[in-house]
Amino acid sequence: MEKIRVAQFGCGPIGCSIVRLAATRPNIDIVGAIDLVNAGRDLGEVANINRKLGVSISPDPDAVLSQTKPDIVLHATGSSLPVIYPQLEKVIKAGINIVSTCEELTYPYNKQPELATAIDKLAREHQVTVLGTGVNPGFLMDTWPLFMTAVCQEVKQIRAVRIQDASPRRIPFQKKIGAGKTIQEFDDLVKAGTLKHVGLPESIAMIAAGLGWKLDDIAETIEPVVAGTEVKSSHITVKPGQVAGVKQVGHGLKDGKELITLEFQAYIGAEKSYDTVYIDGIPNMEVTITGGTPGDIATAAIVINSIPRVIDAPPGLVTMKDLPVVSAPGFSA
Amino acid sequence: MEKIRVAQFGCGPIGCSIVRLAATRPNIDIVGAIDLVNAGRDLGEVANINRKLGVSISPDPDAVLSQTKPDIVLHATGSSLPVIYPQLEKVIKAGINIVSTCEELTYPYNKQPELATAIDKLAREHQVTVLGTGVNPGFLMDTWPLFMTAVCQEVKQIRAVRIQDASPRRIPFQKKIGAGKTIQEFDDLVKAGTLKHVGLPESIAMIAAGLGWKLDDIAETIEPVVAGTEVKSSHITVKPGQVAGVKQVGHGLKDGKELITLEFQAYIGAEKSYDTVYIDGIPNMEVTITGGTPGDIATAAIVINSIPRVIDAPPGLVTMKDLPVVSAPGFSA
Repeated sequence: MEKIRVAQFGCGPIGCSIVRLAATRPNIDIVGAIDLVNAGRDLGEVANINRKLGVSISPDPDAVLSQTKPDIVLHATGSSLPVIYPQLEKVIKAGINIVSTCEELTYPYNKQPELATAIDKLAREHQVTVLGTGVNPGFLMDTWPLFMTAVCQEVKQIRAVRIQDASPRRIPFQKKIGAGKTIQEFDDLVKAGTLKHVGLPESIAMIAAGLGWKLDDIAETIEPVVAGTEVKSSHITVKPGQVAGVKQVGHGLKDGKELITLEFQAYIGAEKSYDTVYIDGIPNMEVTITGGTPGDIATAAIVINSIPRVIDAPPGLVTMKDLPVVSAPGFSA
Repeated sequence: MEKIRVAQFGCGPIGCSIVRLAATRPNIDIVGAIDLVNAGRDLGEVANINRKLGVSISPDPDAVLSQTKPDIVLHATGSSLPVIYPQLEKVIKAGINIVSTCEELTYPYNKQPELATAIDKLAREHQVTVLGTGVNPGFLMDTWPLFMTAVCQEVKQIRAVRIQDASPRRIPFQKKIGAGKTIQEFDDLVKAGTLKHVGLPESIAMIAAGLGWKLDDIAETIEPVVAGTEVKSSHITVKPGQVAGVKQVGHGLKDGKELITLEFQAYIGAEKSYDTVYIDGIPNMEVTITGGTPGDIATAAIVINSIPRVIDAPPGLVTMKDLPVVSAPGFSA
């Protein structure tokens, strides 16, 4: 079996979770790692694997790409497409395929059509394929709802809901969603832009494209989930009237009607976690992932599971709805 | 908008449900119809549409194909691939794409590898694409479970369950599953082969291929669901000890272990209908379609929804896992 040569671009928490999974796959050879932080350290050590990978983290993308000649780069450096575009450009010009966790890359045609066109054109020129994916955006609120419509004769409205109890999550996540803050502090976090989940407009645009809807508007609202009674996690206590977490809703509108609704809630004290897709159509559908989908595990999974599909895809910018079914490998032990 | 020219091959109950949906789609033009029964009658009349379609049913495939030159044939004449192969051959040799409801065509590589190879070769020669699909096999117990593994780091076992309360279904369906029979009569129906749901081995083979498992064996069991207390539908009363319906299970085995289990139950008195996928992996997943999926509506939907993907696919025999996401059109009124 010829191994797939992979380089990791971005070795933060998400990048490291991707590396940890990649290191378990017998068909993957990790050959390079790019990050400004931890330069010179072994990637296995930084990613908390119990062995060295023999890959030294380098701050120089050009050097890594030209010296290691990977088949594909796994990219996880940021959410903003304009910010990361120069990084993608370097990789594409080196003739290397990309799977990126950049949320705005999952379906960039609506919000950033010029960048989408530029990436597609450059990728075709250099005969490589570029994909943005992740658990959300990339799966739960776009590809999965669209996939379920396969058995519908028509769709009138579509709604996806992701409810997460934040209590068992990492402390930084609980803080990020504003748990334990006052409403004023929450509003300040929203204004500072640090609290926002990125990707709802991209998911709405992907669903609309799949269903053939030309929307008039895509809007977003973000508000605190305020505790009615005291709720607590192991580290944070939220008093009544304080913020337990966040509720963010994306709205896809046409002729004054809301055709697509994506609702994301993460807060301490949620009765249960789940992901549900509701399709108002023929037939109506209600599909639920009981207990929800653990985000960090799932994002690393879908990035790694996408690799063979991206390598086999025709050159250009692709999105999850354009790829054949991405699936996991069966455990072989 | 250039319309897609469609011919219907097989105008029984499934074929007619496909025609009824096709007739509602603005991008589809129904140009021909093939069936040995109802020859000379208008397709709209036979399919119970409230208007004539201007398409006369013909028993002669060659004449219909050469005179109407469709872009694609929607084929619904039977479950057995060897039986329908000569029909497919005619259509492929006429240079026309096919979407078929033939259960054994949904993933024929395991049980009928020679026919699969022959169809693939012929389709490539004539530059057409051939797909077998439907709600089950084709979606609920193969493509959908595989699709859900996208967010799994690995899969240890997979199980799909379809439970249907037969009470609200058509009387012929209730009779077909043996409702109201004695156990002896049920066994006779099984021996006669009229009771069996076709497709579990095909679904198991598709999942195994997607997950990279080389199975040792695929087995099937079929048994009656026996009523413990009296249950009834509007037409059939099942006394205690009589058969309320059928339970059929497919088993995908490797090294003595059951890696894939597909369980189909349809009986009068089922507490509720549902479809569930259980993945034992990282993470574990449990995904449920509440209320289940209405089979007849869904099969017509997935056949029609697949058309653009089949037309765009490279030539050859394809399966649902090879196609990009198949989705419904959004209702535009």
